[in-house]
Formats: sequence, structure tokens, C-alpha cells
Amino acid sequence: MDKKIDGTVEKLMLEAIRLAGTVKRRVSPNPRTGALVLRNGEIIGCGYHEKFGGPHAEVNAIRDAGANLEGCEMFVTLEPCCHTGKTPPCTDLIIASGIKKIYVGMEDPNPLVAGRGIIKLRQAGIEVVTNVLSEQCAELNQAFIKMMTQNFPYIIVKSAITLDGYIADEKGQSKWISSPESRKVVHEMRAQADAVLVGVGTALTDDPQLTVRDAEGEHPLRVIYDPEGVLPDRLRMINGANKVPTMIISGPHSTPVWKYNMEQQCVKLIQTEKFGNAGLKDGLKQLGQLGYQTILVEGGGRLQSMLAELSCIDRLEIFSAAKLIGKGIRMMEIPARAMEHSLSFIKSTWKQSGPDMHFTGIINKYNVGNGLNHPVG
Amino acid sequence: MDKKIDGTVEKLMLEAIRLAGTVKRRVSPNPRTGALVLRNGEIIGCGYHEKFGGPHAEVNAIRDAGANLEGCEMFVTLEPCCHTGKTPPCTDLIIASGIKKIYVGMEDPNPLVAGRGIIKLRQAGIEVVTNVLSEQCAELNQAFIKMMTQNFPYIIVKSAITLDGYIADEKGQSKWISSPESRKVVHEMRAQADAVLVGVGTALTDDPQLTVRDAEGEHPLRVIYDPEGVLPDRLRMINGANKVPTMIISGPHSTPVWKYNMEQQCVKLIQTEKFGNAGLKDGLKQLGQLGYQTILVEGGGRLQSMLAELSCIDRLEIFSAAKLIGKGIRMMEIPARAMEHSLSFIKSTWKQSGPDMHFTGIINKYNVGNGLNHPVG
Repeated sequence: MDKKIDGTVEKLMLEAIRLAGTVKRRVSPNPRTGALVLRNGEIIGCGYHEKFGGPHAEVNAIRDAGANLEGCEMFVTLEPCCHTGKTPPCTDLIIASGIKKIYVGMEDPNPLVAGRGIIKLRQAGIEVVTNVLSEQCAELNQAFIKMMTQNFPYIIVKSAITLDGYIADEKGQSKWISSPESRKVVHEMRAQADAVLVGVGTALTDDPQLTVRDAEGEHPLRVIYDPEGVLPDRLRMINGANKVPTMIISGPHSTPVWKYNMEQQCVKLIQTEKFGNAGLKDGLKQLGQLGYQTILVEGGGRLQSMLAELSCIDRLEIFSAAKLIGKGIRMMEIPARAMEHSLSFIKSTWKQSGPDMHFTGIINKYNVGNGLNHPVG
Repeated sequence: MDKKIDGTVEKLMLEAIRLAGTVKRRVSPNPRTGALVLRNGEIIGCGYHEKFGGPHAEVNAIRDAGANLEGCEMFVTLEPCCHTGKTPPCTDLIIASGIKKIYVGMEDPNPLVAGRGIIKLRQAGIEVVTNVLSEQCAELNQAFIKMMTQNFPYIIVKSAITLDGYIADEKGQSKWISSPESRKVVHEMRAQADAVLVGVGTALTDDPQLTVRDAEGEHPLRVIYDPEGVLPDRLRMINGANKVPTMIISGPHSTPVWKYNMEQQCVKLIQTEKFGNAGLKDGLKQLGQLGYQTILVEGGGRLQSMLAELSCIDRLEIFSAAKLIGKGIRMMEIPARAMEHSLSFIKSTWKQSGPDMHFTGIINKYNVGNGLNHPVG
């Protein structure tokens, strides 16, 4: 690949970010990364991390650039790894390649790296420029960074609401508030998420499949929060668990008979020690530790409210439909606030989605680098 | 004005519609109209109705075209009048001008005209083409048409709501849900409306001015629905009624002392014979008969709900803000509906308004013509 880019360091890092973002399938629990190799300011190699366990972006970029990279420069969105995971350390390959200077977007929040990759490169005599567009690089991997720094998965709450603020009618019917166009966007979100979560109420009322049907991509893990262990076999997610992975988070009350029965249906179980909100929090933490970093919550008002009480929602995705139903089931209830102390968002966007309006509101933003975690150089 | 337009009948009528829409100030209770005069397919005169009581669009277009219009053609969005109101009948002028053919957008729903203008033109030997883009022409004058056909004003309900569907917090505080940009749009709406209506609750809680401050244009009439006659002098709308016209709709219970006091403050009064919803309906009807065709409702949930129960809301204007407050006062409550029977809109649009999303939903649409009201020709 020989392509001249007439630009500055920032432009080149933006190109590496763009590359990292082109990956379609989930790479989790790995981060999404992009890398460039340049000779005399000219891009001679591009790479991104394509799939979990596959070669890292740096390896792909170096392979793309070909042999003899003596004196070349590299751009990479995330600090190269210096430990052996599914693949050997990227730092060794970079050092061996002859690259003399490397621009790093952000430090790796993974405690196994956390600045040590940069130190290793410098010790080998490579010039390292750090924190190049670190915020934009961090945006690529919000769930990964949250997991690494807080040991808790990234929680996205999705809701379709009527103009008067209801997510279902009085009988609990929610089919369909939003348009086919919006439902397609939700399927795309599922394909990006590691797991989709609903509560026992939604599982029983809607008997949803929570699979990716209207979009490209693999099904996420389907998770039902069922603290009492009451879900029956007849649900499509349960009796289809042999085809699409399904997991139940249940509490200390669930009986051995019910658990045995669920396992017979190929349902995986997470057992929490605690009840109520604490039980849900524990279950989510266990999900994270199993490698499910991004959880898309498609549950009803009750589950949403529990998550809001736990203050663990990172992003809201709301599809607002041009409909009124007068009365029904409310969206998540947060503790009442006065108007001047309303909960607002770090960043929010509105986007037309067929006849609906799709709102995205960022509640928490995760960043590392800037020498805060680990002193570098 | 000499401007060639290379187009069809529809294109020319669209130009007349565009002209009609350029009027900035209220022309009510007159309709907004536009007219063109053409000689050999070339526009030689343009006109629109600029202000109430001023010359009609046809008169302005003929004046603009100059003398000797023998054999010319005319386009006009609304049937020319044939009665003497504030100005002489347009039909007489058109007949005298020598115009030989006229394209009429829609029949005038005014019972004083209602097809008789068209008949008069035809009787004078002028060729009349009717119903040219009649729906688009009707869109110019929804309030006028509703008033003429239903003897009731056009009701626009405006609301600013949080993402979770509240119009005020638990203490009734609504300042400020929406952004300065949205509030500017509301002031523009006020300048277009004939009257702005709030309930006694909003008047007491917010003590609003309801004037046009962040936009160009004249203040609308300020109307408060106060069925029991309890509003005190101290409110800005009451003690400022000598500067900006203010009216109260009150019921049979209001005392002579209170009424006398209000009139001393220059407040105009509308007295209804009935109570509750019927009283409000009666008050609105009286407002319409006084020439206030477009009523912008800026009241709270209770007033909105009464209007919803009366099924008299024609258009919703909702400013949705990226904020959550958890609990508070709800938007209007309509009778509960199942999801599959949700109230939807004839037409709805979403538009970014600063950080907010501005929703416009048309509930009722008014049209005349197509020979339904009055057989023509």
C-alpha cells in the first residue's frame, strides 16, 4: 500500500483511529487498535486488530509494510503490548523491525502493560511520542478501558419510548413503539455488544430472542437477570440456548432443581451471593470478568431503574417515537431531582431513524494516559 | 418586476404560495394569500396579503403588473373575494383589469365567498381553473379554514419536556428545561399566534410574561384560563395589562368584585356559562369569534390534558431536552391507549434546536375545495 498523506502527526493518528474503527466484528475482550508504518513521511503499511486472538494492529501494519523497516516511523492508537497473551509481545517485533520512532495514542490501561511497553521501546533506543490524540483513541475502547481501570463492564441502556415517555402500554405491550429502521439500528448495536441483558419481566412478557437478525454480525451472549430462578423452559431464549449462548444471573434463592433443569437446556448460570441491586451489580461484575465488556441492556423500566440506582449506566440510547399512549410503563426512574440539578450528559446527539429520533447520551467517559496511571519516561 | 419562470401551472402556483408565506406579521383574521399576474407566460406582477385590513394579494399583484392587463393570466392561492369587507371585492378589480384566465388554489371557506367569487369571475367571461395545489394552499391558512368551517380556533400545544417525559420537577419548577435556542423558537411562535394561553396554575407558579422578546414581531394577546376568578393583581400579566393586551377566561363563579378589579387593571374578560372542560371550550370558541384564530397553549399538564380530553388540539410542538429528572409533572395525559392504538400524527417532523430536539406533530388537517363545500361551475 503506497499512499501519500500530506499531513501532520494528528492527521496520521486520525488515520490510525479510522483504521481501528473499520473492524466490523467484536474483538473483545481485546481493544480495537490501528497502526501505520511510514517511510520518509509516506504510509507504507496499515493494520488494525481484526479479531480476538488474531494478530495485533502493529503486526498487521509491519507485515503490510514488508521487509527492512530500518529508520521507519510508526503510529499506533494504543501502547504496544510487552507481554505474551494469545500472541507474542508487539514490542519485540517493533524493536526487531528497525523502526526508529513511534507515536502512541494512549497508554494501555491493561495492568499487564500500563506504560511498560513504552519503557521497553525507549530502552531499545526507539523514540516514543505519547498521548497523541489520546481522547479520540480512548473513544475507540471505552468498554475495554472501563474494564481495565474499574473491573466492571460498560453498560449501555437502550429504550424505545413514546413521546409522552412510556416504554410500554398499561398491559406491558411494547410492540412496537419504534420503527423498523430503529429496530435495525438496535440489531446493529447487538452485533457490537458482547452481551444483551433483560430482566425476568421482559423475558416473560415479550419472550424475545435478542439475536442479530436485521443486521450483519454474530449474536451476542443473551443474559437474563432472574434473581429468584423462576424462568420456565418454554421461553425461546431458554429452549434455544443450545443454538445461541444464553446465560442467567440468579441469586441465592434459586433451587438446585431449577438450576439443573436450566443447565440441561444448555443455559449457563451465574450465581450471585447477594440480593437486589447488590446482586445485580455482582452479576454484572462476574460477566465482565468472563470477558463480556459491553453490556447492552434491553430490559424494562424496573431493570433500568436498578441500574440507575447503582449509577452504573455509561450510555443511554433512546429511540423516541412520534406516538402518544397516555398511560403505561415509565422509562427508568432515577431519584427525583430539581430542574436545576437535572441529570445531563457529557455529550449527546440526536439522529433521525426513520420516523423516530435516536438519542445517544454519554453519561461516563473513560480515559487513561496523561501519566496519571503510571509515570512514563 | 420582470422575471421569467420556465414552468408549469404547478410551479407558478408554488411561487404564489411562496409569496403568501413571506408575510412576517400576523394578517389574521384574514388569510395569507399570494398572487401572480402573467403576460405570455412571463410574470409581470407579484403580490401578497401584507396585513389585516390592507389590500389583498390580487390587488397588490395587479398594481405591481401596471396598466393594461388585457389577455393576461393570474394565479392566486385563494378564491378572490366577491364581498366588501375592509376593502372592495377583488373580483371587480380582476374583471375590470382585463385578465382573461385565472388559476385558483382553493375555494374560500369564508361563507361570504364559498365559491361565489369563482362564479362571478366565470359569469364575466373569465376562464377559471380551480383546485390547483389546493392542499398546499390550505396549509397556508389552517387556522383560518378551521375557523371558517368549524367556528373554533386552531389550537397549538407547546411543551418542553425532559427525556424522561416531565414538563416540570416535583416542585413545579420548569425553568429551564429547554435551551435558549428553543426558547427563541417559542418566541417566534408567539409572534405568529393570535393569542397565547396558560392556565391559572402556570400563571401563579411561573408568573410568565408571554411576550415576544427573543424574536421580531408583535406580542400576542395573553390569555389566562382562570375559571374560579382567583388571579391576584401582583402577577406581571395582570399589572402589565395596560401595556400588553391581557384577557382572562373565567367561569360563572368569579365574583363581581374580582371582575371589577381585573377590569380596573385593563384586563379584558371572557365569561363562560359552563364549568370544567365545557367552560374552557366555550371560552376558546368566544376567543375565536373575537378574531383570535391561532391559540398557542403554553400551559401546564392540567390545561393540556383538558384540551386533549376535548380533542381540540390541532398541532403539538414539543421541545425535548437531553435531561433526566426522575420524577415531576407529566405532560398532558390523554386517555390510556394500547400500543397498537397509539395516537400518532398525520405528519410529524423533528428538527434540531440547539441541544434540544424540536418535534412538530400535526393532529388535524383542514382542507376545503374539491367541490365539497359548494358546487362550483
